[in-house]
Amino acid sequence: MISGGLDSCVTAFLAQQQGYDIYGLSFRYGQRHTKELRCAKRIGRILGVKDHIFFTVDLSKFGGSSLFASSTQTVRHQRKKSIGKSIPQTYVPARNTVFLSLGLAYAEALNADAIFIGANAVDYSGYPDCRPEYIRTYQDLVSRATKKGVEGKTILIEAPLLSLSKAKIIQEGQRLKVPFEDTWSCYQGGKKACGQCDSCLLRLKGFQEASVLDPLDYETIPSWYANFVKARKK
Amino acid sequence: MISGGLDSCVTAFLAQQQGYDIYGLSFRYGQRHTKELRCAKRIGRILGVKDHIFFTVDLSKFGGSSLFASSTQTVRHQRKKSIGKSIPQTYVPARNTVFLSLGLAYAEALNADAIFIGANAVDYSGYPDCRPEYIRTYQDLVSRATKKGVEGKTILIEAPLLSLSKAKIIQEGQRLKVPFEDTWSCYQGGKKACGQCDSCLLRLKGFQEASVLDPLDYETIPSWYANFVKARKK
Repeated sequence: MISGGLDSCVTAFLAQQQGYDIYGLSFRYGQRHTKELRCAKRIGRILGVKDHIFFTVDLSKFGGSSLFASSTQTVRHQRKKSIGKSIPQTYVPARNTVFLSLGLAYAEALNADAIFIGANAVDYSGYPDCRPEYIRTYQDLVSRATKKGVEGKTILIEAPLLSLSKAKIIQEGQRLKVPFEDTWSCYQGGKKACGQCDSCLLRLKGFQEASVLDPLDYETIPSWYANFVKARKK
Repeated sequence: MISGGLDSCVTAFLAQQQGYDIYGLSFRYGQRHTKELRCAKRIGRILGVKDHIFFTVDLSKFGGSSLFASSTQTVRHQRKKSIGKSIPQTYVPARNTVFLSLGLAYAEALNADAIFIGANAVDYSGYPDCRPEYIRTYQDLVSRATKKGVEGKTILIEAPLLSLSKAKIIQEGQRLKVPFEDTWSCYQGGKKACGQCDSCLLRLKGFQEASVLDPLDYETIPSWYANFVKARKK
C-alpha cells in the first residue's frame, strides 16, 4: 500500500528487497490534495510494480476529520512536544482498517502472500490504528476472513517499520536508495511542503536525527532544522 | 448495513425494535444489478432511518468473483444439497471485511454505539467471513482500532442472525412485520427473481421450512416449493 508518504515508500522498497513482486495499491479517500498520490505513482514506476491500482474510497462522505478537502477546519499546528500525546483532529475514522480491508480484497483476488503497510507506532501521531496490538489483531482477522485462512494458510500483514523511529526509517530509506524527493508528508498540497504541520515536523525531526538532509523544498523550516542544515553543510 | 437482501433487512428491523436510531449504509460494490439497492432504499424509508448513505466501493476493480457486473462467468447453479459445502465462485474476496470497515468508519464518525450486520453462519453458502469466529475477531479489532476503544469503550458488532436458520430468520421477520416483498435475494436483477440460483433456493427453502409464503414473484420455482404453495393454499 503506497500512499506516497515517506513510510509507505520505504516499506515498498523493503518488500522489493525481500524478493516480493510488488502490486501497488493507493487510495483516493477524499484527502485535501493529490500531491501524495502523484508521488505514489512515481514511486510505483521507480519500483517497476507489476500493477498499480488507484482505488477511490471516499471516506469524507462519513466526515469526522480535518484532513478532508471538504472540511472547513484548517489543520491545526500542534506544538512539536505535544505530538503523539492525544488523538489529533487529523485522525480519519478507521482509515487503516478500511485500507487494510481493501488491501486484503486485492491480495485475496491476486492470491498474494503478504500485504505491506507503512504503519508506525513510534512517531504515530496518536492514531489508534498504528499500534502493534492493532496490527496483530488484524493478522488474526485475516486468518479467519479469507479463503486462504480457511485452507490453513494466511496472507501476512507486514508492517516492517512498526517499531522504528522516524530517524531509523530514514536511514533504512537511504540504505535502500529511496528517492526521498518523490515522497510527500505535508498535510498541505502546495508546491513546497509547509514545514509547519505535524507531519512536516515529524519528518524534519527524523531527518535531523538521522543526520540526513531532506531533499524536499519547504516554505519555511523551524530554526532547529535550519541550524542542523547549516551544521551539516559546514 | 442494509444490502436490500432478506437477512440485512430483518437485522435492521431488529435493531430498531431494540431501540436504536438507525443510520443506513448500503454499498455499490460493482454487483451485477441495482435491484437489491432499490430494495435497500425502500426498506430505509419504511424504517424511517435518520440518514442513509449509499457508498461506492468498486470491489470489481480487484476481480475474483462471478458476482460482478464485469465478470464474463455466469453464476453457476449449485445443486440444493451441495450449498454450504465449499467456497462458491460467487464469493467476493474480503467483502464483509471491507463492508464492516466502512461501517466502522461511519460508526466512528457518528459516534454510534453499534454496527448491525446480517451475517449468517447457518445457511452461509460457504463464505469464510460469515462465521462466528470471524465476527468475534472483528469485535476484537474494533476495540483496538478506534478512538472509543482507546478510551476503554467500544462499538458493538451485532450479528443477531448469526446462528439462526433461514426459516427462523423469516419467522423473526414476520413477527417484526418486515415487508418481504421489498427484499431481494436473487443473484440476477430481473423483473422477477430467477428461482434457480443458490440465493433464491436458500430463500425458498427457508420460506418453506418457516411455513410462510414468499410474496416475491419468481420466474420459475422448484417443484418442492410449488408443492408447498399448493399445500398451504388448500
